[in-house]
Amino acid sequence: MKGSILNKINEPKDLKKLNQEELNILAEEVRDVLIKKVSKTGGHFGPNLGMVEATIALHYVFNSPIDKIVYDVSHQSYPHKILTGRKENFINPEKFGEITGYTSQHESEHDFFTVGHTSTSISLACGLAKARDVKGEKENIIAVIGDGSLSGGEAYEGLNNAAESGKNIIIVVNDNDMSIAENHGGLYKNLAELRETNGASENNFFKALGFEYYYVGEGNNVEALIETFNKVKDTEHPVVVHIHTIKGKGYEEAEKNKEAFHWVMPFDLENKESDIIEFPESYTDIAGKFLVEKAKKDKKIVAITAATPAPAGLNYFRQEESLKDQYVDVGIAEEHAVAFASGIASQGGKPVLSILSSFVQRTYDQLSQDLAINNNSALIMVSWAGITGGDVTHLGIFDIPLISNIPNIVYLAPTSKEECLAMIEWGIEQKNHPVAIRVPNGDVISTGVKVEVNFDNLNVYEKTIDGSEVAIIGLGSFYDLGKRVQEKLQRETGIKATLINPRFITGVDKELLEDLLDNHKLVITLEDGVLDGGFGEKISRFYGDKNIKVLNFGAIKEFTDRVSLKELYERYHLTEDLIVNDIKTALK
Amino acid sequence: MKGSILNKINEPKDLKKLNQEELNILAEEVRDVLIKKVSKTGGHFGPNLGMVEATIALHYVFNSPIDKIVYDVSHQSYPHKILTGRKENFINPEKFGEITGYTSQHESEHDFFTVGHTSTSISLACGLAKARDVKGEKENIIAVIGDGSLSGGEAYEGLNNAAESGKNIIIVVNDNDMSIAENHGGLYKNLAELRETNGASENNFFKALGFEYYYVGEGNNVEALIETFNKVKDTEHPVVVHIHTIKGKGYEEAEKNKEAFHWVMPFDLENKESDIIEFPESYTDIAGKFLVEKAKKDKKIVAITAATPAPAGLNYFRQEESLKDQYVDVGIAEEHAVAFASGIASQGGKPVLSILSSFVQRTYDQLSQDLAINNNSALIMVSWAGITGGDVTHLGIFDIPLISNIPNIVYLAPTSKEECLAMIEWGIEQKNHPVAIRVPNGDVISTGVKVEVNFDNLNVYEKTIDGSEVAIIGLGSFYDLGKRVQEKLQRETGIKATLINPRFITGVDKELLEDLLDNHKLVITLEDGVLDGGFGEKISRFYGDKNIKVLNFGAIKEFTDRVSLKELYERYHLTEDLIVNDIKTALK
Repeated sequence: MKGSILNKINEPKDLKKLNQEELNILAEEVRDVLIKKVSKTGGHFGPNLGMVEATIALHYVFNSPIDKIVYDVSHQSYPHKILTGRKENFINPEKFGEITGYTSQHESEHDFFTVGHTSTSISLACGLAKARDVKGEKENIIAVIGDGSLSGGEAYEGLNNAAESGKNIIIVVNDNDMSIAENHGGLYKNLAELRETNGASENNFFKALGFEYYYVGEGNNVEALIETFNKVKDTEHPVVVHIHTIKGKGYEEAEKNKEAFHWVMPFDLENKESDIIEFPESYTDIAGKFLVEKAKKDKKIVAITAATPAPAGLNYFRQEESLKDQYVDVGIAEEHAVAFASGIASQGGKPVLSILSSFVQRTYDQLSQDLAINNNSALIMVSWAGITGGDVTHLGIFDIPLISNIPNIVYLAPTSKEECLAMIEWGIEQKNHPVAIRVPNGDVISTGVKVEVNFDNLNVYEKTIDGSEVAIIGLGSFYDLGKRVQEKLQRETGIKATLINPRFITGVDKELLEDLLDNHKLVITLEDGVLDGGFGEKISRFYGDKNIKVLNFGAIKEFTDRVSLKELYERYHLTEDLIVNDIKTALK
Repeated sequence: MKGSILNKINEPKDLKKLNQEELNILAEEVRDVLIKKVSKTGGHFGPNLGMVEATIALHYVFNSPIDKIVYDVSHQSYPHKILTGRKENFINPEKFGEITGYTSQHESEHDFFTVGHTSTSISLACGLAKARDVKGEKENIIAVIGDGSLSGGEAYEGLNNAAESGKNIIIVVNDNDMSIAENHGGLYKNLAELRETNGASENNFFKALGFEYYYVGEGNNVEALIETFNKVKDTEHPVVVHIHTIKGKGYEEAEKNKEAFHWVMPFDLENKESDIIEFPESYTDIAGKFLVEKAKKDKKIVAITAATPAPAGLNYFRQEESLKDQYVDVGIAEEHAVAFASGIASQGGKPVLSILSSFVQRTYDQLSQDLAINNNSALIMVSWAGITGGDVTHLGIFDIPLISNIPNIVYLAPTSKEECLAMIEWGIEQKNHPVAIRVPNGDVISTGVKVEVNFDNLNVYEKTIDGSEVAIIGLGSFYDLGKRVQEKLQRETGIKATLINPRFITGVDKELLEDLLDNHKLVITLEDGVLDGGFGEKISRFYGDKNIKVLNFGAIKEFTDRVSLKELYERYHLTEDLIVNDIKTALK
């Protein structure tokens, strides 16, 4: 009976009662649940399908949660969730929403960390191992890391340290020969060589780092996996188990089209392909297409992505054969990406790194040291920035404090398509500064009015409505909110507020701000990010000893996890109603 | 005649006229200049002595600046400076101060970047190579990187990408078998194996990554180096040249005591040892000794350093044989260090990571994702923080915007020895938050009054003088400045200002700040760091819509390079005189 084995699995120890045939059936049942669930809700698809057998084997051999398994980036943790008491959340649609898409210690004693950025599992596992050792305990510590995640520097730092620890730590390298996109880097030639030689190649990255090494060619064969995991269980030194799995295993379209099925929107299983949801054109799309046209005319332009060409708007660029020498996917290596861009710019090249807000967090020191101190004119497009109802590990609210407080960098916030393109054009062509652009994440606003490509006069804000009493400074994606507040305030109170598009996140327009003192009582700032360390506080500081009030609107400093945008906007007073009320109160 | 060859070398091409014997004499002359100069001024000693022959060979074989050499972290760039037109700055004491201790594109066309953090050279070189390729040029690109720097994740990301580029890039691995301290990590076993086998070992980290590999055992033999560099010159693919050099070569004491002579204070060549300068006891010393005593009684305490035990105050810990299982030097791997600490804390261990302000910049994403989202109770001691007259690559002013705007982390600023120890004690024992402590960098202030170990009530400031009219909030190392301002203001104006020790960098004490509104007209904040994104701006934001003035004192957002502290304090109005004047002006 379909589901008959999974029915009996409520915790990992239930697995241990199964025989080999039952384990194989269980794998099919888990896969079936995964395919049905993810096709309905969307989520990480290919990586989880590939890990079904390995997860079963891990839980068959090891004793979770005494033995501790850390899943890198959590993209491959759904089978683990299904086997550790959360199967109902994958079977019962009413319970889909109760769990996150990532591992979470708040969900299960079998999860040890909330993880959504890559390449961290080995370091975290080293920590678990050290805690075990100082407590005099003996359990197994296992990190499961995909081949894609191995390109990140933190993973290498972890490997290098794990190898030296000399104690039990088992690193399972889940090699499906794919990152989100294809893999990039010298390491991947070595992984291919190891796969081709069934692990026997003389060149061996892991052995070179000092690991005992095991290879399992049939990474979707429960029996083979169990055999090897049994060999390494209770090892007293660092071990790598390199398993070759099939990304998307068991769902034909996903096996064929690995990138499209890495993470999916909901899709129709009958049609066998992802629902074609017609997304409206986004700012990243527009920027990406613009770059393609620019680059065709200028060989010095080099587009750079750190393993996320699609969400960063670079798929157009990547697919353009004539631009292949001008396109570089560095793998999951954001630090390298920034230094690389700085190096290109130092010799008159025109690098454009497109990166998501959440992942630019990996690059603070490189932005500061490799780029800003050297004042090289690289362009960085920061997308997916702003308050979001998404997962705690992928918030887009921290890039303003991160980037805008580094000297020399000019961080720009466009308010429309026309302004965005003008800023990109300027960012590419100017030679005086590192430039970053906060590419908006919401609906595209087109004014139809061409914006002049000149931002040479730094920190000059644009006054778009000249009013009095109240001034509204609406930064980037929140300029439109400012406009709506301006209109509502006028309707309700007759006050014609001044409206300002600051354009520059990185500095204050002292002259314009001084001028406001003449006939304004209140200045409000609106920013689509965290208040602490952000844009509005610079305005508050400027006005600290002046006779004018300032109210800063933006996100509170907190980690939110899948809280709806509506709820967050209310919590942060980011609706027209709440802002207008706050203005009225402040004017009393 | 002594110096007779060096006399003739004004630029690298002058080297090419020399025969082998003259090159050897030149090496001795350069070494002689280095020893005399650095013994007088202090600076990086051991790494430069080891690289004399390799630098001569590089400039003999390659055509700088057409061929481009990037020196990692610049610790080994002095011989390069001597050979590229800057020898007078090493010979003539009057000109010592005209150059920096690091490479600088502002000093010479033979330098391409200002570099002072490790592990960046390969990524920067990849950028130079890509710029060359898109411009259709043909020169050699060379990165020179020490073995110590290879433990950093950015170096690995660079290697992985350089290997894939498939074009000319030559990576010279300067292996002197030392980081600043001893090396840590699995890689170093492999390097040792390669040295022992004259490069022939089957395990080869560089070959595994796809590099063509050359080994030069006699890394201080100009002839052998020239021979190999000639082989790889104009290569059309990525190459690693692994050279075994002697750190401190040619200065006996430095060869023996490699760590002490990595970077030296001025010392007397006759006595053959570093001047014993009696430094007053520092906060890091006190903290380090305190940790040793704590750890002896509590096996769960694990002290962690990223390759800088001495400046981070952990030498006492490191030297204590009974604590060896509780001490971990992770190598130059700051990202790993933070995730590792988070992992330890997640299981009830008590990790204490001691790290310099400038290097904590490497860890933003790990602080946020690995540590803060998981809310694990690791303790991070941030030292060498504050405004400094030092090099542009080692400023300590950015850690407040970096750390204090991340949710969940509690960042504390002690004002005295007693408070610092109480904060460390609390940080280790509490289980609710990740805690960071900004260990002061200046003279130790001891009040003699024990501070209660309890900071559970977050963001509660301490009012130390209850006054009126003006309130002075002096953060951490600037609390004492606030005290002096308070006294001077009273002397000069009779105003008895309120004085506040905020203790918490990460939040505002709303109740206390509200109370100040009753009888204060002006609040000033003092912080030993950059204003933008810092502590004072939070106070300004809080008071934005209130009837009180606020003045924030701190550093302007700028990179400064060896500007004296006196000059910076005047520029930023951080003297008692200037602050009192500003207060008087604001009160008018």
